[in-house]
Amino acid sequence: MSPRLRHLTSLENLPRETIERLLDRAEALRDACAHGTRKLDVLAGRTVLNLFFEPSTRTRTSFELAARRLGADVVNFDIGLSSTSKGEELFDTLHTLEAMHLDAIVVRHKQSGTPDMLVRHAMSGVSVINAGDGNHAHPTQGLLDTLTIRQHRPDFGNLTVLICGDIKHSRVARSDINAFTALGVKEIRLCGPTELMLPADEAPQVRRYGNFDEAIEGVDAVIMLRLQKERMASIELPDEAAYFAHYGLDRRRLGLAAPGCLVMHPGPINRGIEIASEVADGAQSRILEQVGNGVFVRMAVLDEVLAR
Amino acid sequence: MSPRLRHLTSLENLPRETIERLLDRAEALRDACAHGTRKLDVLAGRTVLNLFFEPSTRTRTSFELAARRLGADVVNFDIGLSSTSKGEELFDTLHTLEAMHLDAIVVRHKQSGTPDMLVRHAMSGVSVINAGDGNHAHPTQGLLDTLTIRQHRPDFGNLTVLICGDIKHSRVARSDINAFTALGVKEIRLCGPTELMLPADEAPQVRRYGNFDEAIEGVDAVIMLRLQKERMASIELPDEAAYFAHYGLDRRRLGLAAPGCLVMHPGPINRGIEIASEVADGAQSRILEQVGNGVFVRMAVLDEVLAR
Amino acid sequence: MSPRLRHLTSLENLPRETIERLLDRAEALRDACAHGTRKLDVLAGRTVLNLFFEPSTRTRTSFELAARRLGADVVNFDIGLSSTSKGEELFDTLHTLEAMHLDAIVVRHKQSGTPDMLVRHAMSGVSVINAGDGNHAHPTQGLLDTLTIRQHRPDFGNLTVLICGDIKHSRVARSDINAFTALGVKEIRLCGPTELMLPADEAPQVRRYGNFDEAIEGVDAVIMLRLQKERMASIELPDEAAYFAHYGLDRRRLGLAAPGCLVMHPGPINRGIEIASEVADGAQSRILEQVGNGVFVRMAVLDEVLAR
Repeated sequence: MSPRLRHLTSLENLPRETIERLLDRAEALRDACAHGTRKLDVLAGRTVLNLFFEPSTRTRTSFELAARRLGADVVNFDIGLSSTSKGEELFDTLHTLEAMHLDAIVVRHKQSGTPDMLVRHAMSGVSVINAGDGNHAHPTQGLLDTLTIRQHRPDFGNLTVLICGDIKHSRVARSDINAFTALGVKEIRLCGPTELMLPADEAPQVRRYGNFDEAIEGVDAVIMLRLQKERMASIELPDEAAYFAHYGLDRRRLGLAAPGCLVMHPGPINRGIEIASEVADGAQSRILEQVGNGVFVRMAVLDEVLAR
Repeated sequence: MSPRLRHLTSLENLPRETIERLLDRAEALRDACAHGTRKLDVLAGRTVLNLFFEPSTRTRTSFELAARRLGADVVNFDIGLSSTSKGEELFDTLHTLEAMHLDAIVVRHKQSGTPDMLVRHAMSGVSVINAGDGNHAHPTQGLLDTLTIRQHRPDFGNLTVLICGDIKHSRVARSDINAFTALGVKEIRLCGPTELMLPADEAPQVRRYGNFDEAIEGVDAVIMLRLQKERMASIELPDEAAYFAHYGLDRRRLGLAAPGCLVMHPGPINRGIEIASEVADGAQSRILEQVGNGVFVRMAVLDEVLAR
Repeated sequence: MSPRLRHLTSLENLPRETIERLLDRAEALRDACAHGTRKLDVLAGRTVLNLFFEPSTRTRTSFELAARRLGADVVNFDIGLSSTSKGEELFDTLHTLEAMHLDAIVVRHKQSGTPDMLVRHAMSGVSVINAGDGNHAHPTQGLLDTLTIRQHRPDFGNLTVLICGDIKHSRVARSDINAFTALGVKEIRLCGPTELMLPADEAPQVRRYGNFDEAIEGVDAVIMLRLQKERMASIELPDEAAYFAHYGLDRRRLGLAAPGCLVMHPGPINRGIEIASEVADGAQSRILEQVGNGVFVRMAVLDEVLAR
């Protein structure tokens, strides 16, 4: 059996067996919930700290619910952006928190690599879980995307998945690619403006497309990324309508995908920019299932790193 | 027996029996607390989310205490006002939260009708409780006001109540009128500047006064509303002192009411503007009893909508 | 036995026996934690409210963890600075919170004396714990500093302690001096710029120094205070480097102290301003032990004031 994780900062280099163990555990928790078991006490007496340097109420709430449903206490440590400038201050904060005998720190930071730095500088037995760092990784999002797909299309060896949008700046895309690759997904495709494409030296196994109609042809699942509006300027498209015309998912384009193609998005969605409402709210949308799976995946991760 | 509520967005059209059931339950919880039972576990494993689009630390804290004292978990979802502009974003937030398997959403929003919209768009079994929406309703405040009066003046058929201040913009006044009417209060009076009076087509059963001395004569309870200072301009009174002279409750005016007239205010009070300190802090003031009853009323409401 | 405390607003005038009881209890909790007992339920059903008018995530988190580890519920009441201007508003807030049946209020306020005012105006059985008020007192910091020293140097009758920095504005220094004096510490020394020294009429038993090299000679523990950068202007030192040269703790100066001298700081530290990194992170630093002791001391205080 692959060794138990003490931290989760990225899905890169995680063995397939570890990822599958986490997905299986999340699935078991989902089944238990469906049968009425909402709350467990496996982490009673443990304390999880949410250390969010970037605001994200959704992800913070998802982690908070996950921890509480395992019986843990949760403390939200709201930190001003001013305090984040210097590495030394970050480590002083880490060590201060460790000294309070916390069990896990869930960290989000705009700087890639912050969670790994915390792991390297941690002095006690605290576990670090990455809730999103810069463009680098968002491992629980990668896991919940994978769980959502597996639920409907378990045969990954015959699966083609497309990720569309601003891939270059997306920690979600990177964690998705890591998980899909580890689990042997047949084909991973990326689509987006050249300026927002994944650099050529990253993930060479992945096929890149500029044309959405070509990219979506026959895919089993499509993951639309959120467009950060401040990046519109860099992509030589005059406005949001033009972006939607080139890279938006509407009903016509979804018709080019395989029948029953899963529609996914990490949220929050920009309606009419990267995705049409008719598709976001349509029968093939799995966007809310992703949110639900997010809580179970985070429960599985907390259980993994904190189990005695 | 009147059917159990699944949501509470307004007291309008609630049967008398339902309101009395909620008040009775709040009273029972108050009695239990007085005998030392501070915490129950009837909602163990359930999760209540505070979704406050308008800041209100007092009401949020009251709901938070109420939920915890029933054994529920509470999550505060702090939402920027920027996110509230479009209905679609609001519903996306609602559906995201529902997908996390929450049991109840306590919502405050400056837009009247938001809680009812959430009820109409809710997809799962989540319960919606209105913690105040625009000028429309503040049902738990209406209930706690009613409970406070009932405690001291249970014979509503012989009761005269006066509400004084900015009635027009007051969700508290509207919920009070709904509750008092349903419970058969003999006479409801309103007093305030013409510009801040309830429109004539609302609550025609209620008597309107412009002169405070006439309005307060012989009343058994007087509810003073908080003056929003930004509305001073519209009412042709030169300043706060002039407002107080016309519509402020002082000891002389209280002497015109029935002996032992209850003095109430939803808080926070503006001393010297709508109420004199000698009255707010006097023997007839029930303002702090209202606060205490608020927690018990909210416990009763949460218990009602979440009981299995 | 000295009577049980109902409130803790200052260490001034506390009997030695009371301080020692709190330290002993904190030590017992620390031992229990070391043996795996992280969570107790002695305060189950009680509610602790954090009422912070000055932001302080560290201290708030420490109190929050302390209360939860005793089984209490914790509510954070975030209050705008605007609400703090008038005493009457503060008391209205206090009474509103009391009416919600809280058991303890942990208060931080920039105005000295606020916790004592709350005690005088409290109407119910609520306990008030000072988490820092102006320049006046920070009693739990005083206790945790004393506990940290006692752990390593229990013979207070032979102990010399130095506090260095901005003594004049420091509530930490005042609470430390109170505790050390009550416990019979042999010698307490202060060092800092004349403009930031403790006024002559305060604590006349304490020796004052302007020269750090002289002050630190032979001391068993040195407590460095955080320099508030906005006070640089008043002390006739051109910049931070000049401050560090005069009043910064580096390895050379630490060498003038007694062997194994304890290095302490209430945090967060300004590296290179009042303390060198080599000392803050060195073998003699007890800074993180202070943080850990902070949680145990706050547990002991909550247990003291809330025990039935």
